[in-house]
Amino acid sequence: MENIKLSSDKKKVIILDQTQLPNQTEYLEIDTLEDMYDAIFHLKVRGAPAIGIFAAYGIYCLSQKIVDQEYDAFYEAFTGYMKYLESSRPTAVNLSWALERMRRVVTENSQCSTVQIVELLGEESRKIQAEDIKMCRTIAGYGLTLLEEGDGILTHCNAGPLATSQYGTALGPILLGKEKGMHFRVFVDETRPLLQGARLTAYELQQAGVDTTLICDNMASSVMQKKWVQACFVGCDRIAMNGDTANKIGTSGVAILAKYYGIPFYVLGPTSTIDIECRCGDDIEIELRDEEEIKRKYYEKPMAPENVKCYNPAFDVTDHTLITGIITEYGICRAPYEESLRKIMEKKRKRQNTT
Amino acid sequence: MENIKLSSDKKKVIILDQTQLPNQTEYLEIDTLEDMYDAIFHLKVRGAPAIGIFAAYGIYCLSQKIVDQEYDAFYEAFTGYMKYLESSRPTAVNLSWALERMRRVVTENSQCSTVQIVELLGEESRKIQAEDIKMCRTIAGYGLTLLEEGDGILTHCNAGPLATSQYGTALGPILLGKEKGMHFRVFVDETRPLLQGARLTAYELQQAGVDTTLICDNMASSVMQKKWVQACFVGCDRIAMNGDTANKIGTSGVAILAKYYGIPFYVLGPTSTIDIECRCGDDIEIELRDEEEIKRKYYEKPMAPENVKCYNPAFDVTDHTLITGIITEYGICRAPYEESLRKIMEKKRKRQNTT
Repeated sequence: MENIKLSSDKKKVIILDQTQLPNQTEYLEIDTLEDMYDAIFHLKVRGAPAIGIFAAYGIYCLSQKIVDQEYDAFYEAFTGYMKYLESSRPTAVNLSWALERMRRVVTENSQCSTVQIVELLGEESRKIQAEDIKMCRTIAGYGLTLLEEGDGILTHCNAGPLATSQYGTALGPILLGKEKGMHFRVFVDETRPLLQGARLTAYELQQAGVDTTLICDNMASSVMQKKWVQACFVGCDRIAMNGDTANKIGTSGVAILAKYYGIPFYVLGPTSTIDIECRCGDDIEIELRDEEEIKRKYYEKPMAPENVKCYNPAFDVTDHTLITGIITEYGICRAPYEESLRKIMEKKRKRQNTT
Repeated sequence: MENIKLSSDKKKVIILDQTQLPNQTEYLEIDTLEDMYDAIFHLKVRGAPAIGIFAAYGIYCLSQKIVDQEYDAFYEAFTGYMKYLESSRPTAVNLSWALERMRRVVTENSQCSTVQIVELLGEESRKIQAEDIKMCRTIAGYGLTLLEEGDGILTHCNAGPLATSQYGTALGPILLGKEKGMHFRVFVDETRPLLQGARLTAYELQQAGVDTTLICDNMASSVMQKKWVQACFVGCDRIAMNGDTANKIGTSGVAILAKYYGIPFYVLGPTSTIDIECRCGDDIEIELRDEEEIKRKYYEKPMAPENVKCYNPAFDVTDHTLITGIITEYGICRAPYEESLRKIMEKKRKRQNTT
């Protein structure tokens, strides 16, 4: 499954429309600025890395339409597109990061012809996607060393290819193992209230031919009790320097169940998720969302009394003592995390300085 | 809130239609055999004790229509009604138990006039309801001794008045405390996939004026982490003689979280739930239900890929080591449960022999 790619004539970006999943597998061909904005704004493409890749391909396609112009006019039009696209989801870090990388290609090659610049933009956009694939592939490789043929794995929410470009993070080891001919049995928490597990993770694993069983979040204890689960793999949204990890609401509960049943619990994510400003979980602010997500979203009619209060945090913090390992593109960190996370960040800095 | 009562002229049974909750509070007045069958069959009235009470009132109303007949014709018509009502939910133990109690009133008073018999049937039906209220009230009283003013309580699924006649089991201490002017803050797990918590428990607590917060099942860890919960109260479907307890799916997960966070976890239910044939949790068979409940029930459109497998157990077993106490109408049992449950069953036998 490819969720983002260029058309064969390289003039359009083709995306899998995530708002139609799991009921329809619909690909959209997008080549106008307005449709690109709309695709991001309406979550047809979602997941921070995926948005960045999409925007890079998008602005490459748009730049082809202005290739006949002089450099100054080209640059002006280019930055206009860029600002408009950035405004589609202003808080998405990867969106502005990817567009800024593309802009630098233009300014750093102002001595070249616009034809050459457009070619270089095409290269850069492919590079952004390739780097993401490589990073996820590396995480998947480290994660796979923790699994054995036939293992049962439980995952929560969606940290798969749809949110990145290939492999994903938490699903990476499973998909890589499948490619290598291994067999796993994966239990997918539906992940209320937005059902990312049921809608997206179950879809991705099924498409990849992995043995997939969907469960309600409250059934995780039951499948662990039956000894069907040998490891838990989850993604992450922010990792504090002591190893405390923020991820989709419900993750901390899975970690506590795993500890009780003696099952290893792994967090998978790129080092960009490690927040060196963040001492521990208490420093992580938790987004509270609209209670309508619990009471009526997706339902035919409301399923709770009209005026009843809801508490709807989007994330929770899993205590570092519950985490068996944190798997990054620079290797696997284990307790004590103060030490292992510091070391991996040093390794990253050194590696980046030498390349 | 009264969910089952006689009309003021004693000719109709009035019930709160549970299939319309939480969107409509609709009372039905029922006085024909067909409508009584329909109310039970279509779950307008549900919960084992509630069904028994409804059937008793129902057959009392029907008996008034045949009061002019001779005893033999009266008895024949009466048992005809009884058999038809019993067939509406043949596996509901309380239904046939309550109707059998009513039938015995007829046979044991065959020397009386049918006018007198009908009067005695009215008395018996009120007695059945009164006994249920008393039992729930007693459980509530024991449970309330475990709470303090201002406590936060987490509950899972529905073990409230709707399933019984008043108070309920797990909700009993909360509702009784409220009557006495106490204030609690109750967190209600929505209880996927059938949402009994969101639809029924949240409704009952809100109606009673209790401070109620609805959460998704996977948010329980989050509210416990914030120290908002001082006790967990849940109902039960079957208790084994070692204390292992079967209850709605997800209960064992709540118990594990409570243990991790150091929060007491209580099971509330009548002694009729203690199964002396059942040595431990392994002996309890768990009902598996249709996967459509997870994938599409209540939704506007399916929320999971069409062919993905689901695992949908209706119950799970909470290990006795996770249970702080089991609260029955004969008192509170604590570990070791082999001993305390045996003693409470002896107490029950003695009490019944002396009355």
